[in-house]
Amino acid sequence: MNSIGKLVVVGVGLIGGSFALALKAAGRVGEVVGVGRSFANLEHALALGVIDRAEQDVAKAVVGADMVLVATPVGQMGATFAAMAPHLSPQTIVTDAGSTKSDVAALMTQYLPDHLAYCVPAHPIAGSEQSGAAAASATLYQGRKVVLAPFAQSIPEAIALVRSLWACCGACVEQMRAEEHDAIFAAVSHLPHLLAFSYIDMIAQHPDASRRFDFAATGFRDFTRIAGSHPEMWRDISLSNRDALLEELAAYQTSLQHLESLLRAEDGEGLSDLFVRARQARQAWYTKFQALA
Amino acid sequence: MNSIGKLVVVGVGLIGGSFALALKAAGRVGEVVGVGRSFANLEHALALGVIDRAEQDVAKAVVGADMVLVATPVGQMGATFAAMAPHLSPQTIVTDAGSTKSDVAALMTQYLPDHLAYCVPAHPIAGSEQSGAAAASATLYQGRKVVLAPFAQSIPEAIALVRSLWACCGACVEQMRAEEHDAIFAAVSHLPHLLAFSYIDMIAQHPDASRRFDFAATGFRDFTRIAGSHPEMWRDISLSNRDALLEELAAYQTSLQHLESLLRAEDGEGLSDLFVRARQARQAWYTKFQALA
Repeated sequence: MNSIGKLVVVGVGLIGGSFALALKAAGRVGEVVGVGRSFANLEHALALGVIDRAEQDVAKAVVGADMVLVATPVGQMGATFAAMAPHLSPQTIVTDAGSTKSDVAALMTQYLPDHLAYCVPAHPIAGSEQSGAAAASATLYQGRKVVLAPFAQSIPEAIALVRSLWACCGACVEQMRAEEHDAIFAAVSHLPHLLAFSYIDMIAQHPDASRRFDFAATGFRDFTRIAGSHPEMWRDISLSNRDALLEELAAYQTSLQHLESLLRAEDGEGLSDLFVRARQARQAWYTKFQALA
Repeated sequence: MNSIGKLVVVGVGLIGGSFALALKAAGRVGEVVGVGRSFANLEHALALGVIDRAEQDVAKAVVGADMVLVATPVGQMGATFAAMAPHLSPQTIVTDAGSTKSDVAALMTQYLPDHLAYCVPAHPIAGSEQSGAAAASATLYQGRKVVLAPFAQSIPEAIALVRSLWACCGACVEQMRAEEHDAIFAAVSHLPHLLAFSYIDMIAQHPDASRRFDFAATGFRDFTRIAGSHPEMWRDISLSNRDALLEELAAYQTSLQHLESLLRAEDGEGLSDLFVRARQARQAWYTKFQALA
């Protein structure tokens, strides 16, 4: 129950490749078949032992698979599910690694409607500046969180298997509804990215932009680091998680209006209270975050 | 012209102490007299050789001084200028290290109206997690920027001396009007602090706060680092630079409304364009910033 024979990884990058390497290192997988559009990347994955066999056609690859992990960008998942649908064995478990979950669930419901009992949407919380099979590592998921957002129809055995394989990778597995997942990540990940992109763009569009940038220092550097993130990926995430993100954006605008009214009223005590609360909350979070790191 | 006899430093912390140490190391100062409210800190400064003599009364300290550097929080500067006013020699140069300039200029105008020819407001851009005389270092200002925001009345000799002493500390000295300084720092420093404080407070006030914090990761960590900054200091800066900050806050709210409209319209191209522009601007800035660091 805790091992599988044939694993198909669609999208052999950092995320999919690291899952394969960790399961191999733990002796929990028989054969890993990698599927991808880039022949060079698949060759690289083969040479590094990330996968045992490369395949460019997902329909051929999934035949006889015990599990398929779809680790492509979410934008490519619909086509991937559609292509594999007629070729899945009845009990092949299908999971993914997308960073939004309601939209992946909707794609599975659309393209794999008869297979939902064996579908277990998931989101491993791991990333890195690097990408591609060459960046994959058997230890990437150690101590990281993985969120499972199964369907009501997902059978307990499928959920348990996906859970136990991620646990083999060293991950802490949590489970919640797709909508909960999306609201949480809209708040703590997607919104800050949008705020940082907007902030940098505002500075860059100012007539005095070049001098403003000249005086930006380390606080600015850290606050804006995530504005260096990949634009297409963040466009996709923004659109995939649009509803939750619009809600968080509205809440943030309300917060800023409150701050503005304190500042306008020169309410030093109100500003100080807000800053004290925020600093305490941030320090409490950081202490816990560091202890777990 | 490039050396002084007696320097008085009011507020012997990281900023004032490091200026004194750097000038001593360069052999540009005869005697350094430290003034402060904390006797323990002054004792420490004496023991470390940051100052040569300690004084708790600013009126006594400034007698016969060639230069007075006021490196206290801006909130204490009015009282400091008022106390020293009757005791300054006609040609004593008065400068400061406050992080806002229009308000310091207003305080000098109010309390030292007959002395403005010798007043040179300044802002050394350096800080650290540490504070107090014990944190002072002769090398703190190497490669850092210092902005001078002199009065129209400031005589060229006074400006030149302050400039050359900061240059001795290894700083790159720039000069601009106080209002320009305040607009630039509102944009690249004060606004991001307020945005980070507000963001953390929004997360902390949410009913699901504890679970949201559980899923916050490294992007969140860097984006919110400055929300760990000192609340009273940031209350003072916010109030001191209120007008410029309100202007930047309004501009940012306009940016967020634009972003919201793109997201609401599911305008993937518009989002992508914005993210690409922001990423390019951030990367260009970071490359330059790192090269200078």
